[in-house]
Amino acid sequence: MKKHIYIFSPSGAVRDKAAFRRGVKRLQALGHEVEIDEAALASHQRFAGDDATRLAAIDRAAASGADVAMISRGGYGLTRILPGIHYKRVAKAIEKGTQFVGLSDFTAFQLAVLARSGSVTWAGPSLCEGFGVSDRADVADGHGAGGQNGPDDIMEACFDDMIQGQGEGAGWRQAKERESDLAQVSAFHARRLGDAANFKVDDGVLWGGNLAVLCSLLGTPFFPAVKDGILFLEDVGEHPYRIERMLTQLLHAGVLAQQKAIVLGQFTGYKLVPHDKGFKLQSVINWLRSQLKVPVLSNLPFGHVPTKVLLPVGQACDLVVQGRDALLLWGHAHAD
Amino acid sequence: MKKHIYIFSPSGAVRDKAAFRRGVKRLQALGHEVEIDEAALASHQRFAGDDATRLAAIDRAAASGADVAMISRGGYGLTRILPGIHYKRVAKAIEKGTQFVGLSDFTAFQLAVLARSGSVTWAGPSLCEGFGVSDRADVADGHGAGGQNGPDDIMEACFDDMIQGQGEGAGWRQAKERESDLAQVSAFHARRLGDAANFKVDDGVLWGGNLAVLCSLLGTPFFPAVKDGILFLEDVGEHPYRIERMLTQLLHAGVLAQQKAIVLGQFTGYKLVPHDKGFKLQSVINWLRSQLKVPVLSNLPFGHVPTKVLLPVGQACDLVVQGRDALLLWGHAHAD
Repeated sequence: MKKHIYIFSPSGAVRDKAAFRRGVKRLQALGHEVEIDEAALASHQRFAGDDATRLAAIDRAAASGADVAMISRGGYGLTRILPGIHYKRVAKAIEKGTQFVGLSDFTAFQLAVLARSGSVTWAGPSLCEGFGVSDRADVADGHGAGGQNGPDDIMEACFDDMIQGQGEGAGWRQAKERESDLAQVSAFHARRLGDAANFKVDDGVLWGGNLAVLCSLLGTPFFPAVKDGILFLEDVGEHPYRIERMLTQLLHAGVLAQQKAIVLGQFTGYKLVPHDKGFKLQSVINWLRSQLKVPVLSNLPFGHVPTKVLLPVGQACDLVVQGRDALLLWGHAHAD
Repeated sequence: MKKHIYIFSPSGAVRDKAAFRRGVKRLQALGHEVEIDEAALASHQRFAGDDATRLAAIDRAAASGADVAMISRGGYGLTRILPGIHYKRVAKAIEKGTQFVGLSDFTAFQLAVLARSGSVTWAGPSLCEGFGVSDRADVADGHGAGGQNGPDDIMEACFDDMIQGQGEGAGWRQAKERESDLAQVSAFHARRLGDAANFKVDDGVLWGGNLAVLCSLLGTPFFPAVKDGILFLEDVGEHPYRIERMLTQLLHAGVLAQQKAIVLGQFTGYKLVPHDKGFKLQSVINWLRSQLKVPVLSNLPFGHVPTKVLLPVGQACDLVVQGRDALLLWGHAHAD
């Protein structure tokens, strides 16, 4: 079914215009009507236009009446304009059926919208890195998708589910845990993480996104006070010690213990160094599990990777875990 | 006057043992008795020993009866052990005359101590990067001080002032502001920043340190609730957009507006990229000033640089600004 997709740029300036054009063409080839915001390709320093320009772009996206308002790309630029966003206009647009989609820096927008209005937005692809991927396997396009053969099938299927209102959830397989890792966590978790570990979390608000952006909202009025939720996290280009420092902040702030589950997505694009001497991402996960009674799941297909699911931020969900298999269920988000 | 200096490692493992030995020799050459904690050279992954080892080292430093307890180096490792520190023991040691000195990751310790007990610690050099600097001008030692001709004179003079209880303050010259930069800030600040800008801040608690570490405590019980204070900040290896994102967090959390002055130290070790297109550290300072009525000073000689002053974290200070010249005054910290 043909949908109206509005493309806007609330964060970083679009430098890879070829990826932008490919993304637009791909969405058109999928049968959609694509409307491009007048400032989508604006540039001011590293931003997609100055603060007023980007705030106006968000206003136009909210007023567009589109089925989907998707960001062109992430980058940096949303946190500093959060006080200027017209949250009531955004909430009204969502109520009328516009689904805001994006990730990375967009996490700031999504969490602020959740904090201010409780409205649901979608963690999912941006135009450039999701749909603008080259289908020439020999082209590295600078978005971590070099060599990929066009947009990812699973991502596109999940996107279609979302826009048609047919998505009911997302399933994935957790990483295989080694005995030596399990031995480092509490008996409580070892039991949960063992192959016989089956459990279910009912009715938790799904929220989260980019870990660094989420942490950069802590202590501000734009951080949503979600209790008994399901928190998902991903990041790119952050060394495990920085990931741990951010998780520690959430831990000490009491945010993690208030959730029903923590779901770790993809953490990519970092480089271990000789000084680490065995300290790695799994060390961080082990440590986190030793500090928490809340289940910490791994390997959610979401983050700065081609294959990702779309996730309704702010939507009440169930989480079903059977051994390594996990399933997030949000039913028909727009059915009730 | 000979002092007893205790060296301990609460954060990262010491890899540059030559710098460690040089630092010890330098302090001895200055006439001091240097005591080395039994775990000062411990190593577990990237840490100077596991969590229990580092917590025990802090306990031993507090029990040492030394005049100065100085860290061997920064790195990463304090935030995750903050709940396990015996703050009363640390406060008692400080009351009895032990001055804790360090920087970088040590900011977490200093701010947690301030939050929990109100005790004063010193932002200053670590053993390795402060006193362990090679005096061979051709040796790059990996601590940002390559090519330097031994420990910095000003730092050593300030250190001596501190240990002898003779330091009364620190003066410096702010960066020269360009008209084009001043034009971007409010009239309020343009007046303050102009050459005729003279003002005084009375009796504000001096606090701060490493920006990333300080921000990683926001929202946790280890972040001190300082109002009407003088906040100083520095960082290394953080791109200006990340510096801005952190300052934005402090701004939106209401922390900056509650201070009497913000004093920016040295921000070093980052690299601008073509995507920045003119966005730089001065852009961040301009933006911050446009958002705040509180004076934002620049160029404090403190950070990951050889030439730095020592600063009493938690001590009530006066700040006198005459044009570009600034003076922080804390009188005799131990006189009353």
